[in-house]
Amino acid sequence: MVKNKSIEISTEPDDIYDISTHVQRFVSDIGAKDGAVIIFAVGSTCAITTIEFEPGLRRDFPKTLEKIAPKGKYHHDATWGDGNGHSHLRSSLIGTSLTVPVMSGTIATGTWQQIVFCEFDVKYRKRKIILMYLGDTD
Amino acid sequence: MVKNKSIEISTEPDDIYDISTHVQRFVSDIGAKDGAVIIFAVGSTCAITTIEFEPGLRRDFPKTLEKIAPKGKYHHDATWGDGNGHSHLRSSLIGTSLTVPVMSGTIATGTWQQIVFCEFDVKYRKRKIILMYLGDTD
Amino acid sequence: MVKNKSIEISTEPDDIYDISTHVQRFVSDIGAKDGAVIIFAVGSTCAITTIEFEPGLRRDFPKTLEKIAPKGKYHHDATWGDGNGHSHLRSSLIGTSLTVPVMSGTIATGTWQQIVFCEFDVKYRKRKIILMYLGDTD
Repeated sequence: MVKNKSIEISTEPDDIYDISTHVQRFVSDIGAKDGAVIIFAVGSTCAITTIEFEPGLRRDFPKTLEKIAPKGKYHHDATWGDGNGHSHLRSSLIGTSLTVPVMSGTIATGTWQQIVFCEFDVKYRKRKIILMYLGDTD
Repeated sequence: MVKNKSIEISTEPDDIYDISTHVQRFVSDIGAKDGAVIIFAVGSTCAITTIEFEPGLRRDFPKTLEKIAPKGKYHHDATWGDGNGHSHLRSSLIGTSLTVPVMSGTIATGTWQQIVFCEFDVKYRKRKIILMYLGDTD
Repeated sequence: MVKNKSIEISTEPDDIYDISTHVQRFVSDIGAKDGAVIIFAVGSTCAITTIEFEPGLRRDFPKTLEKIAPKGKYHHDATWGDGNGHSHLRSSLIGTSLTVPVMSGTIATGTWQQIVFCEFDVKYRKRKIILMYLGDTD
């Protein structure tokens, strides 16, 4: 059985968003049993990963990324001049796709392991995330 | 056909574990033919990736991560005081999910490409890894 | 429905290759409707990710990786002496697998989000990439 849904979220620069509830609700709504759900971020200046979603890490994560791929001058600017070279690089490093097992209708993430959408871009955006379930249903 | 299995491993801080044999054995045991197996680490201070599993890289990999997300003080400590902010950051950077194609019953990894569980936490742990197969079986 | 295909590409050291068209063509050729395609790089000195494939980022991405895992001396060299420790580390950081949703026969990537194979190794290579589709077909 294959089921999918697109969700939209409004984002601010340099923030992360816990979308675990969205994913679990989708899985529940379609009557999923055992399978996997793919969470895919449409875009090249954002990412999907897991993290313990708490205020401390929400500040630590962008700080670490600022060390790895700091805001600043990149060759990318020569192409578009939009000053978000670092956003693209962070997206490619973290990745835009995540697959989570579903067991007896429940996503298999741990208690302190949330699914997050990462906004790396430099302006306010509307983002599309695709949820795709493959597996058994009721 | 959907089949899954949970495996448990005991881990030490800052080490990586070759779980390729576990994954291949699971795939063989269920009679998988063509499909994909999802390897998912339950937790927010660990990760799954591929690496050539040999003694040199086993030392190089933590060293590189120590440069990217060094042990030290993070805002995360203010929340829990457990001194593992870097463990969480490394988990989010590397990722907790991996999907490997299965072809004619064999995982499609290369000869020098092993599937590894990465323990980033600061204490000895028991870890749960979920294997989820989607595809054809005998 | 499960369908797969192996593709081969010839690569140069430190370059990235847009394989989006290969992936879309595979999906179209098999009559895929709704599902997911797994793109898997066979090897431990390469990776798969998404990026806006334009000349600027094509230069920025290796530069950023050179900061994270610079060319140089690694313990890995003691094992094989092939001077590509950094290639392995970059592979493990970026990852060798990507899963992309397919909706009504079209891969769900954004307009400026290409699927790329990353060659991190130090010599010219022939590379195998596995495409595995799981989902509905016509």
